[in-house]
Amino acid sequence: MLQRPYLLFLGDARDQLAAKTAIGLFAWRRDWCLGQLRLPGCSAMLDLPEMTVADGVAAGARTLVIGVANAGGVIPPAWIDTLEAALLSGLDVVSGLHDRLDAIARLRDAALAAGRSLVEVRVPARSFPVGTGLPRSGRRLLTVGTDCSVGKMYTALAIEREMRVRGMEADFRATGQTGILIAGDGVSVDAVVADFIAGATEWLTPAQQPEHWDLIEGQGSLFHPSYAGVSLGLLHGAQAEALVICHEPTRTHMRGLPHQPLPDLVSCIIANEQAARLTCPSARCVGVAVNSSGLAVEARSAYLRQLREATGLPCVDPLLDGVGAIVDRMLS
Amino acid sequence: MLQRPYLLFLGDARDQLAAKTAIGLFAWRRDWCLGQLRLPGCSAMLDLPEMTVADGVAAGARTLVIGVANAGGVIPPAWIDTLEAALLSGLDVVSGLHDRLDAIARLRDAALAAGRSLVEVRVPARSFPVGTGLPRSGRRLLTVGTDCSVGKMYTALAIEREMRVRGMEADFRATGQTGILIAGDGVSVDAVVADFIAGATEWLTPAQQPEHWDLIEGQGSLFHPSYAGVSLGLLHGAQAEALVICHEPTRTHMRGLPHQPLPDLVSCIIANEQAARLTCPSARCVGVAVNSSGLAVEARSAYLRQLREATGLPCVDPLLDGVGAIVDRMLS
Repeated sequence: MLQRPYLLFLGDARDQLAAKTAIGLFAWRRDWCLGQLRLPGCSAMLDLPEMTVADGVAAGARTLVIGVANAGGVIPPAWIDTLEAALLSGLDVVSGLHDRLDAIARLRDAALAAGRSLVEVRVPARSFPVGTGLPRSGRRLLTVGTDCSVGKMYTALAIEREMRVRGMEADFRATGQTGILIAGDGVSVDAVVADFIAGATEWLTPAQQPEHWDLIEGQGSLFHPSYAGVSLGLLHGAQAEALVICHEPTRTHMRGLPHQPLPDLVSCIIANEQAARLTCPSARCVGVAVNSSGLAVEARSAYLRQLREATGLPCVDPLLDGVGAIVDRMLS
Repeated sequence: MLQRPYLLFLGDARDQLAAKTAIGLFAWRRDWCLGQLRLPGCSAMLDLPEMTVADGVAAGARTLVIGVANAGGVIPPAWIDTLEAALLSGLDVVSGLHDRLDAIARLRDAALAAGRSLVEVRVPARSFPVGTGLPRSGRRLLTVGTDCSVGKMYTALAIEREMRVRGMEADFRATGQTGILIAGDGVSVDAVVADFIAGATEWLTPAQQPEHWDLIEGQGSLFHPSYAGVSLGLLHGAQAEALVICHEPTRTHMRGLPHQPLPDLVSCIIANEQAARLTCPSARCVGVAVNSSGLAVEARSAYLRQLREATGLPCVDPLLDGVGAIVDRMLS
């Protein structure tokens, strides 16, 4: 468990997008964020008080969260003074980067001296059993995608919020770094040993009361040649009766692979339903979540209408339309 | 690379099957095996000279291979004296068990003192890039299965042997512990970090001359709820134009999962072909390899004939019939 509340470290982020982990936290867990700590040269900014480490501690922060995602996932030397000061002032430090905090001697020493934790949310904190596929109680929804980075985390969080507004028992289950920071816990399923993808997912989404919903963040795509193994293990481990497929209609190829075309959306729904039925025979797709930010306003309505006709499913942009139509379908 | 030849350590194996790693090595790499080392109480036996560590060293052995696979993959205390003596006498020690040799202080110290290696074939020796799905030259075949432990390694090795007899360029590519010991190298794909299953497979089976065949050992099954993620990543990374499906017809449920029925063989062929075509559009199944040891002699012929009619493919028991019919089909 991560200790809250958080002081968000934006470092020397070169633009707003570089602080996407902090942006996700701020968008979804505003109440956990006390302030932002920006280094000289930082071009990102949130609507939060600017704080030093000392300000954050005085305000009650428990953890400094590295909110910057850079290419290669590196921890640049310019950050070390601040991270060390945070530890020595009594804060835990949390990272979802590839570079490990505990590989940096000054941070390891400071954490030891101050009795604080270096939390690597991408590194599994425990080992997992292999998956069993045994049926378990409770209801589960998994977001899947035609590609990576098409809104699977956002959609699962939006459904959690919608269900809670309606008084339903519902919990978001995080399977990636930003999701884990937002949820406060979770498992980065792309970082577990391959044999344990499904097992880690079963562990993350255990048996619950019959009417309780787990809303599970999907990863990758069954049609992404780099990551489909993770997507399939997650699909089997989730035992989700409900799938929501996420899509970005202006993308011309699979993310990071210019030679790889996107799958047809309907084929992608069918493939996900078929695979999901191995461990949940009643699995079905209950909606399509479209990131329509790349479409013109007129094109957007026509596109969603056309998609509704092709799939027979509620098709929404969660950011613009909400996900009420999808939750309605699930309950009908 | 593993240093050959090998002295096979059978430990205190309680029956013949408990020494399955040694049996696989002996069956497929007889020339690399100088002798067997059996502890008191060992009930397994190979047709090899019995040797002490000193005998093995005198005969030219370079490596002591732990040839025993036990439940839990543990290294019992009764083995330590022998493993330590092997290191101090100048042998490397190789293990495919879950327990790590280097977690045992006496073995770590002995390896350091003698300048020998503790080789954990299950633990990836390097990191891998993520898969790209980019087409590469050379020809590739992957064995897939309706379940785990249905003959995927055996079949790939049998096809390598058959092709080499015919003068073809062909290399077996190992993806599991016993296969790695037989091949002398390879990658245990079930032990890599989940994001890199396909990438590790691409690395293991790189571009080759156009007529060269890589014969890739499959793992698990697309229909096994515990391990299907590994199977799919392997399928995408392999980019295999030819699939051979392996099957054990008397099995009543998926291995280790009494509640999970086996898939229909034809459905399993179709699902594997569909998934494989993401990275190799020409992928097709070219044969069925049946472990028929559980069938009566009369039932066996009728079963294979019926399977030929249902699939339109050559259907053989590789142990009894060889795999010539499958290689014929590949070349036709």
